[in-house]
Amino acid sequence: MKEISILGSTGSIGCNTLKVVEAFKGEFGVAALGAGSNTELLAEQVEAHRPRLVSVSDDESREKLIFELKQRGILNLPLISTGVEGLTEVATCDRVEIVIGAVVGALGLLPTYHALEMGRRVALANKETMVIAGELMTRAAERSGAELLPVDSEHNALHQCMRGEKREEIKRLVLTASGGPFRNADKQTIENATPAQALKHPTWRMGAKITIDSATMMNKGLEVIEAQWFFNCSADEIDVLVHPQSVVHSMVELIDGSIIAQMGVTDMRHAIQYALTYPARLPSQLPPLDLTALSKLEFFAPDTDRFPCLRLAYQALRRGGTMPAVLNAANEVAVAAFLDEKIRFGDIPRLIEAACDAHQISPANSLETVLNADRWARDWVTQKIANQTTAVTV
Amino acid sequence: MKEISILGSTGSIGCNTLKVVEAFKGEFGVAALGAGSNTELLAEQVEAHRPRLVSVSDDESREKLIFELKQRGILNLPLISTGVEGLTEVATCDRVEIVIGAVVGALGLLPTYHALEMGRRVALANKETMVIAGELMTRAAERSGAELLPVDSEHNALHQCMRGEKREEIKRLVLTASGGPFRNADKQTIENATPAQALKHPTWRMGAKITIDSATMMNKGLEVIEAQWFFNCSADEIDVLVHPQSVVHSMVELIDGSIIAQMGVTDMRHAIQYALTYPARLPSQLPPLDLTALSKLEFFAPDTDRFPCLRLAYQALRRGGTMPAVLNAANEVAVAAFLDEKIRFGDIPRLIEAACDAHQISPANSLETVLNADRWARDWVTQKIANQTTAVTV
Repeated sequence: MKEISILGSTGSIGCNTLKVVEAFKGEFGVAALGAGSNTELLAEQVEAHRPRLVSVSDDESREKLIFELKQRGILNLPLISTGVEGLTEVATCDRVEIVIGAVVGALGLLPTYHALEMGRRVALANKETMVIAGELMTRAAERSGAELLPVDSEHNALHQCMRGEKREEIKRLVLTASGGPFRNADKQTIENATPAQALKHPTWRMGAKITIDSATMMNKGLEVIEAQWFFNCSADEIDVLVHPQSVVHSMVELIDGSIIAQMGVTDMRHAIQYALTYPARLPSQLPPLDLTALSKLEFFAPDTDRFPCLRLAYQALRRGGTMPAVLNAANEVAVAAFLDEKIRFGDIPRLIEAACDAHQISPANSLETVLNADRWARDWVTQKIANQTTAVTV
Repeated sequence: MKEISILGSTGSIGCNTLKVVEAFKGEFGVAALGAGSNTELLAEQVEAHRPRLVSVSDDESREKLIFELKQRGILNLPLISTGVEGLTEVATCDRVEIVIGAVVGALGLLPTYHALEMGRRVALANKETMVIAGELMTRAAERSGAELLPVDSEHNALHQCMRGEKREEIKRLVLTASGGPFRNADKQTIENATPAQALKHPTWRMGAKITIDSATMMNKGLEVIEAQWFFNCSADEIDVLVHPQSVVHSMVELIDGSIIAQMGVTDMRHAIQYALTYPARLPSQLPPLDLTALSKLEFFAPDTDRFPCLRLAYQALRRGGTMPAVLNAANEVAVAAFLDEKIRFGDIPRLIEAACDAHQISPANSLETVLNADRWARDWVTQKIANQTTAVTV
């Protein structure tokens, strides 16, 4: 039995990971769970999986969790830590073989880094970790021999497409994008989209932040940056293709002109299972993909005029250094402000572009440097939004 | 430089193989060419590639070839053999590392078998060899350690999809079919289709026999049988999906629900190059696939009511032994009769079904047995067609 720990257990990926664990009784044990403040769900997970260690956001959540656990009649309480230190304890917990990195945003950075330094397999669903600190993460994995496996559906698909291939025989990666809820919307509609409209994703059910990223296509931009580090590619070797059906999860073009594509149903449990069982594949209990029921698959070039976030991401990737960290942090703050109805949907790319233009690049050669760039961008965009109370747009 | 020999050099696959050889100057040398009676094209190939040995159908073709070569001012003539013996000499020619098996019909059987017995890589485009004697071929390859690589686009695609996969983790093979020229035709139109109509293939340019097989979907039926031997599968593990765009060349479903597909342009040179360079991939000089230009991929379940040949092939595969050999031979005779306008298009499956029903199965445990079954079916169907001069249908 392999012991796993989950960073972000009460989120969408975390819950699905526990479903996969339940589907493979005896294969995996849950040693540690890291969550935020959803103590009710965490208590339920603790009752079902009995981890040795859990982590929550702060002391208040800790007290709540203890109360919830006692309510459930659980006498033998796990260790309960808090904050980023708590998450790091979850990531580095004794005897754990696989760490699932699924917290949202920059919070996963340090815990993931420590898990990689210890040589643990990290199944990474947290895009931001690789966007902000891809070089540091891949170097840490190289030094320790840790496996760094992608859990998000596109990179997981790319990983599968490359199983039998040599890096030097790969010409191009093609990330597919659903196109989000505004795929066919005009510029004006996109500019003024409401949170309710932007949260209606056509094919995937995910958390709020990542769903908004899908609507702006920043999600795909972050994936392009992530792909560079996962697969040792340059921006010129990574393309994006809009594919509304989300059936082809991604593709690889080989130097001989052959294209290998991975397809499946839009259920994250497939990618999670793959990352847990790799290099083996185990029988899935999910319904298989019915290609005849789909009947039609479409592919379009993306429109960076209506979706400037994709262009901004390529630009940040090419500029390099701390620029992707700034792009990501600016995006996090802007998306949160949009969800809070403080800014328009169309302000999201404008704020990001302004932050990137204002940033002085440094080489991304230490966690301190990238975290400083992250903080700088958060402050800069927060200030910009605060100043905006009098202005209509940036 | 790897020396190759080609069985069927003046056919579609043979000519494309020589184009691939020309595109990779210095990588491959042509040691031997086996052809039929197209001595003009063969003479051109001899002039361009200077093989040590060639083979033609008979003495008349031999004389013609000598005349053609002298006309071209070639003084240093290659050895010129004839018949199946000649083809076998081509397949077993000294120092040859790769044999391309691309003659049409049952003729390729013996030469291919001998090449496999010698441990040579055989890049096989001749479907009938595996349909008639798949078990004998794969056993010969196992004994000598020969590599048996598929060149036709679907099996080549399956081979590529399986590069990084374990046999026991493969759940299902999905062969795609263009659906041929009669994909949307009604039963009556198909019944009375003319050779000119049946020869108009929507996506692939191939020889006449294989193009008719595509129109009846027997081509796909033969591929299902072939797939059993290439990939060690049962009939239940092989599915067919109509995909008019012929962009997805085939797919593999893994036990975890993931589907790996291979895509490419509809140019046989890709599969030929793959079989020549495997396990390496070399840069192709052909234009790449443009997925955005395609925009739409469709998939449908096949209709065995309008295309009974597919049903007959599954039936023969399940019955086993000499039955696939009978199916194939009956098909060859029926197709030739259709092209000669002796029978209707709709008679092709009726003749095959009648031959299969009349056949007494034996285990396919020797070349003699399968060749006897092949001869029996040819005679039976030929006789049936001769008797038909008075009857309208079988």
